[in-house]
Amino acid sequence: MSLPISYKDVTDALVRIRKGLPITPVTQSLLFSEISGREVFIKWDNKFRSGAFKERGALNFLSALEPEQRKSGVCAASAGNHAQGVSLHAQSLQIPTTIVMPIYAPLVKIQAVERAGAEVVLEGENFDESLAYCLEVEKPKGKILIHAFDDPWIMAGQGTSALEILDQVPDLDSIIVPIGGGGLISGIATAIKHQKPDVYVLGVQSQWAKSGGPKKSSNKLGPFTTTIADGIAVKTIGSLNRQVIDALVDDVVTVTEDDIARAIVKYLEAEKTVVEGAGAAALAALLANALPARYKRTVLLACGSNIDMNLLSTLIQRDLVERGRWLRYTISVPDRPGLLSSISGLLASESANIMDVRHNRFAAIPGHVEMEFLVEVRNADHGKKILKMFADKGVTVVESN
Amino acid sequence: MSLPISYKDVTDALVRIRKGLPITPVTQSLLFSEISGREVFIKWDNKFRSGAFKERGALNFLSALEPEQRKSGVCAASAGNHAQGVSLHAQSLQIPTTIVMPIYAPLVKIQAVERAGAEVVLEGENFDESLAYCLEVEKPKGKILIHAFDDPWIMAGQGTSALEILDQVPDLDSIIVPIGGGGLISGIATAIKHQKPDVYVLGVQSQWAKSGGPKKSSNKLGPFTTTIADGIAVKTIGSLNRQVIDALVDDVVTVTEDDIARAIVKYLEAEKTVVEGAGAAALAALLANALPARYKRTVLLACGSNIDMNLLSTLIQRDLVERGRWLRYTISVPDRPGLLSSISGLLASESANIMDVRHNRFAAIPGHVEMEFLVEVRNADHGKKILKMFADKGVTVVESN
Repeated sequence: MSLPISYKDVTDALVRIRKGLPITPVTQSLLFSEISGREVFIKWDNKFRSGAFKERGALNFLSALEPEQRKSGVCAASAGNHAQGVSLHAQSLQIPTTIVMPIYAPLVKIQAVERAGAEVVLEGENFDESLAYCLEVEKPKGKILIHAFDDPWIMAGQGTSALEILDQVPDLDSIIVPIGGGGLISGIATAIKHQKPDVYVLGVQSQWAKSGGPKKSSNKLGPFTTTIADGIAVKTIGSLNRQVIDALVDDVVTVTEDDIARAIVKYLEAEKTVVEGAGAAALAALLANALPARYKRTVLLACGSNIDMNLLSTLIQRDLVERGRWLRYTISVPDRPGLLSSISGLLASESANIMDVRHNRFAAIPGHVEMEFLVEVRNADHGKKILKMFADKGVTVVESN
Repeated sequence: MSLPISYKDVTDALVRIRKGLPITPVTQSLLFSEISGREVFIKWDNKFRSGAFKERGALNFLSALEPEQRKSGVCAASAGNHAQGVSLHAQSLQIPTTIVMPIYAPLVKIQAVERAGAEVVLEGENFDESLAYCLEVEKPKGKILIHAFDDPWIMAGQGTSALEILDQVPDLDSIIVPIGGGGLISGIATAIKHQKPDVYVLGVQSQWAKSGGPKKSSNKLGPFTTTIADGIAVKTIGSLNRQVIDALVDDVVTVTEDDIARAIVKYLEAEKTVVEGAGAAALAALLANALPARYKRTVLLACGSNIDMNLLSTLIQRDLVERGRWLRYTISVPDRPGLLSSISGLLASESANIMDVRHNRFAAIPGHVEMEFLVEVRNADHGKKILKMFADKGVTVVESN
């Protein structure tokens, strides 16, 4: 059975996009190599103007349109990276563009699309509803729909990343690629397996996608019910993408939200680079030992870096608590004046920085008050030392984590 | 009068370091160009293994040592980047190394230096005290002192960055360089002014350094009294560096801690890159309009990316409050059951996400309770809309920001 795209589709796409897009860099990661006992390379497909790889497919699709098709204009549904990829390149090719975005799309992304000259229509509570609107209302107006992943031109365009990788790391033995709708991995697997059938192609889905996404009812809670990896928060893999994945991808694994959260912070700390949840999924899979041990020279796709700063700061702080850099504990002490001063004196003597204190006068022990502290310490051992210091002074530590 | 280093010292340094260090990349920043109405380029001198430019000077110094000098070993005082630069390259050249670090140096930095095979001595409460110890105790043992900035080899080594820039952006008309001790800018100015005397060289100090650093007594508070730009937290510019700066640098400006904090978050958001305080100082100066308007093609030195994750998350959150993405307010309401539910229902109807709530039963109005909310909103206008909604429902907003 012939697959939806061929190797030639991908090499043709590369010719088409080369003038409009840079070759994104590959670097070796010393830390990730050390941690995993392999040579680990990162393909920085987040280094596009829009911050994500989606420009590859969008530009391939748009460049392939005939002059009369360009005049009729295009439409697309997307909350983020595909919207920016399409609108940026449609603008440079002077193609009229309508983007349907979910009503809760972040303002910053709506503005970015509008700045690229596209018309934005806010319809639907999530990607699937926006796409339905696009199909029912915008496409019938004669506009050409650019699907975010379930399309041969898009798939072939995303696959150009693999052609660059085969030049940059010719002796790779494996590659780890995030899966949302499957556009990226189907293009990449097509190119890799044609040139090097022995290279192991591993796909990574987020737990969220595997579970079919949030339940319909929970959607009603608004923009804050979401996965960290919103870039791969697609309920079902596209049907064309599914054919390629079944034929060419060696394995598909699932990573948890926790794995992804940790991977995002690891990218910040070790590579000094902001990577969004979807982009960090490949690292999450590596760190979860999802790649068979025999593969020693692997490439991670870091395919996007558009993450909300609020979410990013929350993930960093979660990580600090997890690693014991932030200590949270509650003590119970007799309710008398001067208490906070003496407790905080003890902490100061240990160079522990108080970040938050709460008093609770309704303690379990009558005549006592409970104080909950959030304290910055040097590391988990320092935290333990501080708790022991309280115990030695006769202060009751009610709970800690 | 002849200056402490010549152009030839810098070109010789480049030959010396080239085998051991990569050429760091330069990219144009679309957003910073747009904001400032100029072509703005960034020299990514944070893209070294240690995360900072200091490797240039360290490797130049170490490579120039005679065989018998190498045997006697080297010593250096540093809390951070210089320590890592020296220890990494001394290790590859097999030169015994002692690094004196302040007693409050972050554990992660101490471990990095130890991992590079150097002996770490914890002495002194800050850089100046560590340096004094190094001079009084380590140097007399016959070790060669590698000063972090006040040294011709170090200055010439740092200047190699400018030779790369002159290749990468040959028609620059200006360059903005952070100043701590002055090692980087004295090397850069030497190279730039020799090749292109008309290029405007602007130095940037942090407010903290200008004020002479923290007072002696406040040092006692421990590791948390620090400037955001700890990499340039040096009380006085070196004497050799001062000579070069006076002769060759066109102007030196001061940026505030606030300017630097905002610049760090801008780098994260726009360039997706972690830049430490010292490294963000050049951008801070650009955004504060410190570069004369006639210069239209400028290079910013982003010279380091070693920032504590705790500090980074705090800076992001500060920025969210400043930009109205986080709304903090207190309301006063009658003390009766079901109140939090109805208030939070109002917020939910506006898709505003409650991040923290505190009850205060000792309100100014008898029979009332005060509730302090921290809420995530879409932007400042959304925040205003929510406050107006409370007012319309007869809820008293005691204060907000």
